[in-house]
Parts: sequence; C-alpha cells; structure tokens
Amino acid sequence: MPVSAEFDYLRVVLVDARNPLNIGAAARAMSNFGFRHLRVVNPYDVAFRNARSAVGAADVLAGAEKYETVAEAVADCSLVVGTTAVGHRDLQHSLQRLEAGATVIRAHLASGPCALLFGSEKFGLSNKDMSHCHWLLHIPTREEHVSMNLGQAVAVCLYELMRDPGAQAEPEKGSPASSAEMERINETLLTALRASGYPKLNSSDSFEGAVRRLVRRLHLQHGDAEFLLGMLRQMVWKLEKKIKNSDEADD
Amino acid sequence: MPVSAEFDYLRVVLVDARNPLNIGAAARAMSNFGFRHLRVVNPYDVAFRNARSAVGAADVLAGAEKYETVAEAVADCSLVVGTTAVGHRDLQHSLQRLEAGATVIRAHLASGPCALLFGSEKFGLSNKDMSHCHWLLHIPTREEHVSMNLGQAVAVCLYELMRDPGAQAEPEKGSPASSAEMERINETLLTALRASGYPKLNSSDSFEGAVRRLVRRLHLQHGDAEFLLGMLRQMVWKLEKKIKNSDEADD
Repeated sequence: MPVSAEFDYLRVVLVDARNPLNIGAAARAMSNFGFRHLRVVNPYDVAFRNARSAVGAADVLAGAEKYETVAEAVADCSLVVGTTAVGHRDLQHSLQRLEAGATVIRAHLASGPCALLFGSEKFGLSNKDMSHCHWLLHIPTREEHVSMNLGQAVAVCLYELMRDPGAQAEPEKGSPASSAEMERINETLLTALRASGYPKLNSSDSFEGAVRRLVRRLHLQHGDAEFLLGMLRQMVWKLEKKIKNSDEADD
Repeated sequence: MPVSAEFDYLRVVLVDARNPLNIGAAARAMSNFGFRHLRVVNPYDVAFRNARSAVGAADVLAGAEKYETVAEAVADCSLVVGTTAVGHRDLQHSLQRLEAGATVIRAHLASGPCALLFGSEKFGLSNKDMSHCHWLLHIPTREEHVSMNLGQAVAVCLYELMRDPGAQAEPEKGSPASSAEMERINETLLTALRASGYPKLNSSDSFEGAVRRLVRRLHLQHGDAEFLLGMLRQMVWKLEKKIKNSDEADD
C-alpha cells in the first residue's frame, strides 16, 4: 500500500505540542497509515525530530515543517479542520463526529489540500486557533473521559481516514472437511469408544447419531480432520493391542 | 455514553508489555472509549498501575488484573482474538482486517466474553500466545511500516469496535440567509462600490448580476448576513459622509 495521491493532500498540524514523544507518536501513526506531511506550530521542544517513540517514522519527522503561526501552517489548504474534545468551551463552529467528518475530508482530499489541526496536550486548540478552521471534528469518546492522548487521537483520526468500509471478512484458512472424512472420524471414534468400554455406547439406539452430530458441529477443516483421525487411529491401535495382550494373558 | 453491557464483555489483554507508559496509554484509550477490563500477562514492570500517560484512566488501571499465563488470562472467554502486525512470521491462523474482524467481535460481545490480545512492543505475540487464539486481527497499515505503537494500536482497535457506522453529518450551525437578506447585501455592496468609484461598475450591463451571483456563492448564514450587512452599511455611511464633506469643501 503506497502513499496514495489523495493522502498526500493531508497536512497533519500539531499546534503548541508540549511533549516531543507525542510529536513522534503522531509521526509514527502517519507513517503507519500512509500520510507524509507533518507541520508543527510553535513546538515546546525544538529537538522534536529526535522523538524516541517515532520508531520507523524518521522520514516523516525529517520532512516535518515548523511554523510560527497557524495562519502560515494552513496557508496552502482549502479546507482546515480542527479537532476538539468538546465540552470544555462553547463552540462557535459546527461540529462533526469523526465517522461523518472523515467522509467530508476524504471527498475534499480528492481535489485539494486539507489541514487537520490538533491542539496542545493540556489545553487543546485555542479559540484563536479554531477561528482558522472551517469546522471542527470530535472523536466520539465517553462523556466522563473525553480527553485523549495526542498520539492516540492522531492515530484514530488517520485510521478513520484510511479505513476501508468495504473490507470483507476473510474466509477461514483451508477448506472444510468432507462428509466422508467426518464419517471416518465418526467410525474411528466409535471403535475407540468400544475398545475403551465406554458405558453409554450400548445404552441408547440414538448414541451413534449423537456422536455423528457432535463431529459435524466441530466445523472441522480438511487438514484438521486428517490430524484428528491420525490421533484416534493411534489410540485404537494401542487399545486393541492392549485387549489382545490381555486376552493372551488370560489364556 | 455510559459503559455498555456489550463493551463490558471485552477483556483487553496485554502480554509481556515492556513499557508501563504503554500500559497506561492502553488504559487511557479504554477509558476514553468505554471499556473497563484490562488484563496484563507477565508485565515487565510490576509498578504499571502508576503509569503517567494514563490521564483519567485511574479506574481502569486500579481494576487491572495480573496473570502469569495467557491461558489463565483468557480462561473465561469464549472468543480469543490476537492482534498481529503480520509479515514477520508465517501465520497458522486465519487473519482478518480490523474493519471486518471488529464486526465479528461486536457480534460475539452481544452474548459472551471476548479477549483481545496485544503482544510486547518489540516482538508482538509469540506463536505460543497465538495458539490460544481463535483467529488473528491486523490493523491495515502501510506495508513498509506495519509496526504500530502499542498504545496507538489499542486505541485504534477500540475505536473501530465502538464507532458508529450510521453516524450522520451534523447540519451547519444556524440557518441559511434568505434571498431578501442576500438582496440587501447585494444592494448595499453596490451602493458602497458606487460611493467608492469602483471602475467596473458602469463598464458592463452584467456587473450587477455578477455581484448577485457572488453573494449567493458565499453560502451565507442568517446571522452572518446581518453581520456583513452591518459592516457594509458603516462603510457606506462613512463613504457618503466623506463625499458630502468633500462636496461642502468644494463649495
């Protein structure tokens, strides 16, 4: 999965980030999900490029651009979206849940650059920062705990942007066992039970049916049916040998 | 959004986590998204409950359960799913992309407990850990950089489990300006241009139409139309006063 042309239009903008580890974590999530353009506005630590948590994200950090103001950092963007935990101040903007907002951002990225702004760990985006935004985005968190870790918030937003709503469940590995294979297991299991003197074996006419239904409920795969049959045959061999030896001993 | 009964069936299991900050970050994401049951198997640092990055996640960390083995940590679970970055070893399991796998997990959570396993930061889950799993889950990352930060991987998985695919875009705040309001802006703007001696005003019969279309393309909201009209009226007042003063000065 190479970086797509559309993702190349996204600028992740971290405003007033205090902790270089968080900048590194943001860069790592960007690299994981295929986004390249990181911009930092007024970072607390100018040595942010050495962030330790940025395993594998050296390219993103090396290419990060530093700006003095939000206005400069978003100058080339035709859509500017701010993230907010909501609730801590009256919002003057319209607010979208991440699921819905990401759809709008994806549509925009098809034709032009978009900035996605994240505020400082402690205070989020200021009202002045937000005034540069067209609208705001919030990650749907529990009301009692809305404030997310910065690196995790970036990861979740980027994941939502790149996730594939049409992704289908993979079929199970291998192919299901055939009825003939299941019937061999069924017969071998009954042979082993007879050789073991399993008490319920002759107590009911329907016992064989119950065993057959059990084997079918196991949803066995082709290879697993062979695997299990081998185990059962070994037990039958040993059981019958024991019986034979014991018969000889009785003679 | 209280913790839902279904989310209460999820156990987040961190196996061999090396860094208490990552355990804290996992706990924070759990608290953000409404999951309560954290289990740690053989953590490197027994003081993990004091993790600094766990802002607001004290309840989750205090309730975390410590286990010696994966078998004990998943004993009560009827579905066990392991996460993997894929690619670093041959997988013996069927593998689901997060989008599709989360659907299966959500369906299971409606009726019984499910464990979601995350391996150590450096090595992920071992083959032995994985043998306790029914199937494996992977977050769709770029092939060149599959390895995610542990706290971010937990956040992304839990977000996918709780996201609402039916979330609708919020309508814009306020109501759109009426045609009458836009026409007042149009007239006041033309008055201001006349008073300013704007050169193109009389050069083309279609100029007034061009201004009217411009005003409509602004997608003005009701309150913003009033806001803008007030600004234009002030300019017109000042311009006409200037013209009057200048006429008087000419007299």
